[in-house]
Amino acid sequence: MSVQTYHVTGMTCGHCVSSVSNEVGALPGVTDVSVDLASGAVTVTSEQPLDDARVREAVEEAGYEVSST
Amino acid sequence: MSVQTYHVTGMTCGHCVSSVSNEVGALPGVTDVSVDLASGAVTVTSEQPLDDARVREAVEEAGYEVSST
Repeated sequence: MSVQTYHVTGMTCGHCVSSVSNEVGALPGVTDVSVDLASGAVTVTSEQPLDDARVREAVEEAGYEVSST
Repeated sequence: MSVQTYHVTGMTCGHCVSSVSNEVGALPGVTDVSVDLASGAVTVTSEQPLDDARVREAVEEAGYEVSST
């Protein structure tokens, strides 16, 4: 199991959290997505380590950005 | 035809705009809902003048508030 945290910018409300959770949660192997709206922290649990680029794409698909820091 | 503008607080993104538009747009007689996210202005076009209380209920149903001013 792998747990990785990303910082996502641009989320402003619970709907944004849902959008990000749904997109990232649909990635193959992802078993849990936890989003803290206030900090932008998105913690992704997956069966195997994820390719960061795939996570970034999913976040962008939802309409937000992964911060590079 | 009646056009009435309300001021809604708490909308932060396009998802919020959609939620308010959908709830208010579902009121009987409403033919158009236009939301300006920046100002919170929600302009409702309807066949007959609307009961403000019904509009307020719809906005609250979506999770937001009509400002009393």
